[in-house]
Amino acid sequence: MNYTNIRWADIEAAHARIAPYIHRTPVLTSRSINALASCSLFFKCENFQKIGAFKIRGALNAALSLRPEDAQRGLATHSSGNHAQAVAYAARQLGVKAYIVMPENSPIVKVNAVRGYGAEVTFCAPNQAAREATLREIVARTGAAFIHPYDDDRVIGGQATCAKEFLEDVPDLEALVAPVGGGGLLSGTCLSAHYMAAGVLTYAGEPEGAADAVLSLHSGRIEKAPYVNTIADGLLTTLSERTLHILAQHVQAILTVSDAEILAALQLVFERMKIVIEPSCAVPLAAVLKHPELFVGKRVGIILTGGNVDLSRLAKWFAR
Amino acid sequence: MNYTNIRWADIEAAHARIAPYIHRTPVLTSRSINALASCSLFFKCENFQKIGAFKIRGALNAALSLRPEDAQRGLATHSSGNHAQAVAYAARQLGVKAYIVMPENSPIVKVNAVRGYGAEVTFCAPNQAAREATLREIVARTGAAFIHPYDDDRVIGGQATCAKEFLEDVPDLEALVAPVGGGGLLSGTCLSAHYMAAGVLTYAGEPEGAADAVLSLHSGRIEKAPYVNTIADGLLTTLSERTLHILAQHVQAILTVSDAEILAALQLVFERMKIVIEPSCAVPLAAVLKHPELFVGKRVGIILTGGNVDLSRLAKWFAR
Repeated sequence: MNYTNIRWADIEAAHARIAPYIHRTPVLTSRSINALASCSLFFKCENFQKIGAFKIRGALNAALSLRPEDAQRGLATHSSGNHAQAVAYAARQLGVKAYIVMPENSPIVKVNAVRGYGAEVTFCAPNQAAREATLREIVARTGAAFIHPYDDDRVIGGQATCAKEFLEDVPDLEALVAPVGGGGLLSGTCLSAHYMAAGVLTYAGEPEGAADAVLSLHSGRIEKAPYVNTIADGLLTTLSERTLHILAQHVQAILTVSDAEILAALQLVFERMKIVIEPSCAVPLAAVLKHPELFVGKRVGIILTGGNVDLSRLAKWFAR
Repeated sequence: MNYTNIRWADIEAAHARIAPYIHRTPVLTSRSINALASCSLFFKCENFQKIGAFKIRGALNAALSLRPEDAQRGLATHSSGNHAQAVAYAARQLGVKAYIVMPENSPIVKVNAVRGYGAEVTFCAPNQAAREATLREIVARTGAAFIHPYDDDRVIGGQATCAKEFLEDVPDLEALVAPVGGGGLLSGTCLSAHYMAAGVLTYAGEPEGAADAVLSLHSGRIEKAPYVNTIADGLLTTLSERTLHILAQHVQAILTVSDAEILAALQLVFERMKIVIEPSCAVPLAAVLKHPELFVGKRVGIILTGGNVDLSRLAKWFAR
């Protein structure tokens, strides 16, 4: 059974479609982190991307792929994170309405960010069933187009443009490392590496406290994490059949890391690179530092996925 | 009486001397901060500079200006901050010893950073007299060359290269804003603006809790701050006769800001620009936001001086 059929031409078309609306984010390096990791690390800085995260790529590609008569009824999604802002921003670019379902316990700063892009926020109980029911009701009432955060070929094709830029700018990478939550970015990363540079191995970092993907890749079907408790709050979702299928074919390994390892990597990036990233974003660097046997001496590309961190929460982690 | 005689040729020579050892730091912009400030802001990112701060410019220029027979006996200074790292780094580039006097209550992270560049650290009681006495003893014993953090034409000439790069990269700036502590960076900024672009007005931001420069400019002699209590711990020192003399001729105004205003500006830079800066570094942006009557509609250059922030202290400020 074929869950996806994303070709190289689809990724190229996605890039052409979204390029006018996004930043081509810079690739940074750090001599002192290289010395610690004993390899040459390249960081693709999606924390500097529009809305502060890579998610804008997938949401924009999905939105811009809609027929005009479908887009004009608006865009809808449920999310408490960067995807909510991404859909809100994409709708504003198209000049249409955005309907965002958010759990009623969402941090007010996130709600305000989404409203800041002009989106209409509908609150729901903080569970998956309530999210989906509320979204269905909105879609039925408005005719808005639902943009899933990752279980969508257009979204995956959009996220793939990040690794495409990365491999264009640093063509001799030997490995790519991305975090895995629902697997949209990781799937896109694998596909761009597959089409552009067959020799590049794609790895994922996953928090121990949300370790569903590593189990799913092992068993070959969607598994739940044994427990969910991590500071990497962007990586709590599980894979879909679609992303599992892509990852089963293309990902080299999923490397799990503890919250202590994530925090240490986060601190390194703040202190050595002087840039702000969110905890989910530090997971790949933590994985690289934990597995010298895989990376020593190599040229390794790390996707820094976003920089939307709540400073008062950050404060608690570092106040030790 | 003439305290200084820094010519344009001296600043050009300083730049040629230090350029091989430093980064030409990027200039960043932020649409959302521009919208808040109602002007076009340009940020010169010395937080990405070698050692994480502009101080390397002055220290390197002083060190590289020494006769080889003087340099070979080593470099010395007293500092608990970025100047200590700057002198240590400069000494390593020259292949000579660095002797750094630090107060015995210095944070261990700062001591380790200085030792990380191979410098010999000597501790002293945490007061100015003990610092100077300890330094004199070391200089007498070793013959090392003392590099003052700001009361030195070679240091000021080195710091001036920051505004020189800035005005080369953004030639149509209408104002420059830097923080003021001892006045080394601000003096260099004034001089480069004076020589390169006579129409550019140079302003300073100063913490209310270390407000000596604003008083000194008013009375025309070195004054002490009424009280010293601010999170901007890089700006606690007073002007020297030399820097007062330059500033009296060239600075447009010194604008004081409260710690609450500094923190709000710091938070804006973290959240909107996704870069790490130290509190002293947020003082100019705080001043610009406080004085729309001076800056609205203008093209304003802000020097972000450094990014060496202690994350656990940062945490306390934001954990509210």
